[in-house]
Amino acid sequence: MIAPSILSADFAHLAEAADSVPTSDWLHVDVMDNHFVPNLTLGLPVVTSLHAATDLPLDCHLMIDDPDRWAPGYAEAGAANVTFHVEAAADAAQTARSIRAAGALAGLAVKPGTELEPYLDVLREFDTLLVMTVEPGFGGQSFMPEVLPKVRLAREHVRSGHLRLFLEVDGGISADTIAQAAEAGADVFVAGSAVFGADDPGRAVEALRDRARAAMAV
Amino acid sequence: MIAPSILSADFAHLAEAADSVPTSDWLHVDVMDNHFVPNLTLGLPVVTSLHAATDLPLDCHLMIDDPDRWAPGYAEAGAANVTFHVEAAADAAQTARSIRAAGALAGLAVKPGTELEPYLDVLREFDTLLVMTVEPGFGGQSFMPEVLPKVRLAREHVRSGHLRLFLEVDGGISADTIAQAAEAGADVFVAGSAVFGADDPGRAVEALRDRARAAMAV
Repeated sequence: MIAPSILSADFAHLAEAADSVPTSDWLHVDVMDNHFVPNLTLGLPVVTSLHAATDLPLDCHLMIDDPDRWAPGYAEAGAANVTFHVEAAADAAQTARSIRAAGALAGLAVKPGTELEPYLDVLREFDTLLVMTVEPGFGGQSFMPEVLPKVRLAREHVRSGHLRLFLEVDGGISADTIAQAAEAGADVFVAGSAVFGADDPGRAVEALRDRARAAMAV
Repeated sequence: MIAPSILSADFAHLAEAADSVPTSDWLHVDVMDNHFVPNLTLGLPVVTSLHAATDLPLDCHLMIDDPDRWAPGYAEAGAANVTFHVEAAADAAQTARSIRAAGALAGLAVKPGTELEPYLDVLREFDTLLVMTVEPGFGGQSFMPEVLPKVRLAREHVRSGHLRLFLEVDGGISADTIAQAAEAGADVFVAGSAVFGADDPGRAVEALRDRARAAMAV
C-alpha cells in the first residue's frame, strides 16, 4: 500500500492534494504538537474537514504527547487508521482498544532509536506497526537504512506469530529507497516529497507501487 | 477592521475560504497546540501555505506554550501580525521585539480571567492587544460581556498614553454583539461562525463592519 503524506502538500489546497493521488491506498496525515516533536502541523479540525473532502482512507500519525487522551478522537473524526507513538503513550494496549472501539484500525509507531523487542507482545493489540525511517518532525529527510533490521525483526515476528499487522515505513521513502524497505518486509509505504514534490503526484504513486511490488516479488 | 477566523472555515479548502472574504482587513489564524489550550488546530506549515495562497494579511493568534521560542517563526513565514498569550510567555517584551525584527506587528493576548493592569506598561512594545471574549480553545462560543470593562480600560490607557495600538476582540463576535465591543473601544473584530457560517461570508464581513462603524459613530 502507498500512503502519500500531506506534510509535503499545499495546506491551503488539501482537498486538491487528495484528489491528485486518487489511487492511493491511504492518505497519511502527520499530526504534530510542538511538544513530542519540534513542529506544529495540524490537528483534529483539519482531519474532520479532510475526511469530509475525500474518500481516501485517512492514516493519522500522531506525533503528540498524551495520545491516550487524544487518539480516540481521531478515530471518531473518521480516520481509518490512528497510529500513536509508544514513546509517548502511558498505556498503549488500552489506547489501542479505545481507537478500535471508536471504529478505526490502531497503529503503534516507534522512532528510529526505539528498540522493538519490549513491545513485541503488545503488537497483538494493533493493526499497524509504523517503523520510522527518519527522526519524526519534518518532511524531506533522508532514509535511514540502519533501521531496516528492525523492519526485518518485525516481519519475522509477524510471520512466526501469525499476526495480522500492516508493517509501515515512514521517512525518506522514494523510488530509490522503497525497494530496500519492501525487501526488509514493509508493506505500507509513506511518501511525502516523492509524491507531492513530483510533477504528477498520481503517477508518482503508481511508480512507487510498481517498485515495491517488484522488490516484494524477488 | 474585520478579521474572519478560519477556525470556522473548511480546512480542506483554506484558499477558497480566504477568497470568499476578499474585503477582510486581516485573516485570523488560530494556532493551538493541545497544551496551552485543549485543542490542536494548525501550525507553521499551514501558515506558510496560506500566506502563499492569499494576499490577505494573516493575523496569527498563538494559543501555544513557549511563544518566546515559536512566535518569531510565524513572522518569518509571512504573518502580518503575530499575537501570543501573556499567560504563556516568559519575556513578553523580548518576544515582541523578536516578532517586530522579523517584520510583523506584535500582539499580546489576554484570556478572559487575566487582569490587564500588570501588563499596561509592556503594551508600549506591542502593536495589538487582543482581549479574549471567550475562553480560548474552540469556535462557536458565546460572547462574555463581563470582559467589556477590560476593553474600556485598554481604550482609556491607549487614549491617555497616546499609544498606537490595535484593540482586538475575539470570541462570540456577531452582528448581535459587535456593537457592544465597538462601543467599549475595540477596533479589530475577529469573527468565525458569524462569517464562515453565513451563506455569503463576504457579505457577512461587510455587515459586521457596518454595525461596528455605526456603534463607533455614536
